[in-house]
Amino acid sequence: MLNFEFENKTKVIFGRGTEQQVGALTSQYGKKVLLHYGGGSVKKYGLYDIVVNQLKELDLHIVELGDVKPNPRLTLVRQGIELCKEEKIDFILAVGGGSVIDSAKAIAVGVFHDGDVWDFYSKKAKPKKTLPVGVVLTLPAAGSETSSSSVITNEEGWFKRGLNDNLIRPVFCIMNPELTFTLPEYQTACGAADMLAHVMERYFSNTKHVDLTDRLCEATMKTILLQSPKLIDNPEDYDARAEIMWAGTLAHNNLLDTGRVGDWASHGIEHELSGIYDIAHGAGLSIIFPAWMKYVYKTNVEKFAQFASRVFNIDYNFENPEETALKGIEALENFFLQLKLPIRLADANIGSDRIAEMANKVTNNGKHTRGNIVKLSTADIEEILKLAL
Amino acid sequence: MLNFEFENKTKVIFGRGTEQQVGALTSQYGKKVLLHYGGGSVKKYGLYDIVVNQLKELDLHIVELGDVKPNPRLTLVRQGIELCKEEKIDFILAVGGGSVIDSAKAIAVGVFHDGDVWDFYSKKAKPKKTLPVGVVLTLPAAGSETSSSSVITNEEGWFKRGLNDNLIRPVFCIMNPELTFTLPEYQTACGAADMLAHVMERYFSNTKHVDLTDRLCEATMKTILLQSPKLIDNPEDYDARAEIMWAGTLAHNNLLDTGRVGDWASHGIEHELSGIYDIAHGAGLSIIFPAWMKYVYKTNVEKFAQFASRVFNIDYNFENPEETALKGIEALENFFLQLKLPIRLADANIGSDRIAEMANKVTNNGKHTRGNIVKLSTADIEEILKLAL
Repeated sequence: MLNFEFENKTKVIFGRGTEQQVGALTSQYGKKVLLHYGGGSVKKYGLYDIVVNQLKELDLHIVELGDVKPNPRLTLVRQGIELCKEEKIDFILAVGGGSVIDSAKAIAVGVFHDGDVWDFYSKKAKPKKTLPVGVVLTLPAAGSETSSSSVITNEEGWFKRGLNDNLIRPVFCIMNPELTFTLPEYQTACGAADMLAHVMERYFSNTKHVDLTDRLCEATMKTILLQSPKLIDNPEDYDARAEIMWAGTLAHNNLLDTGRVGDWASHGIEHELSGIYDIAHGAGLSIIFPAWMKYVYKTNVEKFAQFASRVFNIDYNFENPEETALKGIEALENFFLQLKLPIRLADANIGSDRIAEMANKVTNNGKHTRGNIVKLSTADIEEILKLAL
Repeated sequence: MLNFEFENKTKVIFGRGTEQQVGALTSQYGKKVLLHYGGGSVKKYGLYDIVVNQLKELDLHIVELGDVKPNPRLTLVRQGIELCKEEKIDFILAVGGGSVIDSAKAIAVGVFHDGDVWDFYSKKAKPKKTLPVGVVLTLPAAGSETSSSSVITNEEGWFKRGLNDNLIRPVFCIMNPELTFTLPEYQTACGAADMLAHVMERYFSNTKHVDLTDRLCEATMKTILLQSPKLIDNPEDYDARAEIMWAGTLAHNNLLDTGRVGDWASHGIEHELSGIYDIAHGAGLSIIFPAWMKYVYKTNVEKFAQFASRVFNIDYNFENPEETALKGIEALENFFLQLKLPIRLADANIGSDRIAEMANKVTNNGKHTRGNIVKLSTADIEEILKLAL
């Protein structure tokens, strides 16, 4: 186990009816609220009215910024920063999923930065101060509701880059599984793939003596595997929605990689895939992760066999652990297929023509490698993308 | 799954050499430090000097209060409160295990209370303000380093009572597994029993649809079962010490019972046992928990069979799950014996003469029941204590 620091200050308020606390919670932090949200579903299903009414009852001043897109855009973030400065906003309330929350976090740190907010995402600067951000979560997937990360897409070149800092964890997060009943099947499935991938990125590690975090990862993955298919059949299964919602948070709050180095190559590759093709992040991960596993498993067969055995209950082949490892990858693909997710680029109508371009972007034209189980070069990443065809 | 709130603000700094950060961390919170510790081991092994030198280098004013006993006493807490007021202390640094930390938490809230600090433990008052408490942990067991609880023993009647409040979580906690190399075998074993019991209290629950937290509990218990016996053979096994240290924290930081009601009868009974006989809390738990299990398992056979099957890998008897459940209890007893812990009152030289007195204290003379899997009366608790003879 490696040395580590762990700090997660976000207050979680979880369960039925908890959105009724949003006004009281918000009023603890600010008076002038930027209400940040995405498309029409927040308004369509009544959550918008519930939130606005509560804020108004407490005489909070509301400034709205909607229309956050999946793979949230830098242009809107810049707009949000200007708006916050003009209106002297002191609190940002993100109502939505990971894209809305990531966008809110970017705006919150951008307000206090003299330069362009992209500096934080291109690693030219580190944020020192932020507006407080609160969350009403409607889509369990990205884990952004308590995480230290934010991922933004720069439309100039379609670069998708992340910022990681404890400073940007939200101050509170309201999670009512009932608010996810109306999620379309595809979004539910993409969410499950995203949270599963967050655990797998941490799980596939060369760090030794990580028994506890290995087992915590396995526990979380098993829950995702068992509970998410229930939602395809019955989207209003409260208990399964609740398990998935809480699993999505724990998958990405940094507890599961305390004392170990994760891999994160698949996320790096997927970011360029969804940056260029604008597909859902979860769908990109269900394509990339199995291909990555096939390319790297031989360097750490025992870990991939452990995954197969402990997570998918595949009988361990003592004479041939490699066979067990491969069966685990196959079982993962079958899980994604059960959720009707793509597992090949062709399933998402993506061809081979921009593979070299994507691989180059992942390594910043060969300037650095990606991943940790294996440090991948541009050529390695091209091979992985070809395995995904 | 039930509605819940979860908030754990303690910053954890974990790993080799991390005690070197205690000065810098302390100076972020205060200038006048109450240094709180227990017996001689902190001085004997050099930690005291490391801490004091760092605080002095940063010109922090140090007031010392040592001599905290296991099952920490109210008298010393009251003394600490007076000392803090006289010396205008603004930060308490607890260097030690659960007893020292619990005592520090009690002092920290007592300073701002007009009445007697025992009011918080006898539920007559709720704390509203606290001094910040920092921790250098030397004994992984109680989980107090990030928990919301503090247990104090009132020598007038030897009542042992707990306070639970998010307010009293420490602001930081330094955890270096190397600092636990010198722990005597018995204390290591008692610590393992204590943390295992913290998970079991949460695990044995009648709350349904708690797949994720069930699995997280099982993951933590398996790690404790696998790693702690290594320390009996090799007390300087860094990796096993690290697993146990982190498991002890997670066992009691409230993550594992999010959305579920724990039982806590065994802790209630054990508190009176160690309150009267002054035995180690972990040793009391290794006596009480199996007896409690034998008394209540029939009301929720499937849960006890799940424990046997998933935690101890006992083959599930589909025709007779009760047999599986009983084998789990036996396996737990064998684990305690492997750690050379008592599993019967007689093993700790305790007879039957004060059973009625203890049972009465647990229920406050029959005024309330204890536990949740089964709501235990005074008579039930007497039976459990007899099963432990």
